[in-house]
Amino acid sequence: MSKDVPYYAVIFTSTLTENDSGYTEMAERMENLAKKQPGFLGFESARSEVGITVSYWKTLKSIADWKAQTDHQFAQEKGIQDWYKWYKVRICKVERAYDFSREASLL
Amino acid sequence: MSKDVPYYAVIFTSTLTENDSGYTEMAERMENLAKKQPGFLGFESARSEVGITVSYWKTLKSIADWKAQTDHQFAQEKGIQDWYKWYKVRICKVERAYDFSREASLL
Repeated sequence: MSKDVPYYAVIFTSTLTENDSGYTEMAERMENLAKKQPGFLGFESARSEVGITVSYWKTLKSIADWKAQTDHQFAQEKGIQDWYKWYKVRICKVERAYDFSREASLL
Repeated sequence: MSKDVPYYAVIFTSTLTENDSGYTEMAERMENLAKKQPGFLGFESARSEVGITVSYWKTLKSIADWKAQTDHQFAQEKGIQDWYKWYKVRICKVERAYDFSREASLL
């Protein structure tokens, strides 16, 4: 996937409120749902002081369809109501990609 | 910064080897150096199983200049020699950006 540019990335950065009960379960559910969406290419996620989730998509249309997906809409509303102190969404076109691996077989 | 599209993002994802002594110090040093580069706009970083660092830049030229910066070159070589099990670099054009904040003053 990595090198077949161009494709699209959604960079989602956030911090959580103290009221984050149910967040982890919902995040996992959304990850599993996203994987079933047309145009889904991949997913990476990490959280320290800030959380960063990057999802990769074939087209802008596949991103818009995922944003509008019913269960995902519900999760977004719940996130705004309870979970996120703030979030930022950036929709990007991946123009160039390269990688390194200590063991060639890893990638 | 967030909404002044287009600008550029470098998504750097990685996992570390066991031999990561000196990595944290170097990562901090590189963050401080990057902030002084022309065209630098911002920086976000988190590490769980995978590490994700996203840096934001005004132009592709400012990204190329940072990649070629002498101290950064040294850090990249050290990373390949010792620290990274694998990494992926994606150079992206940020085409759309929006955000949410519980307290309007936070952003």
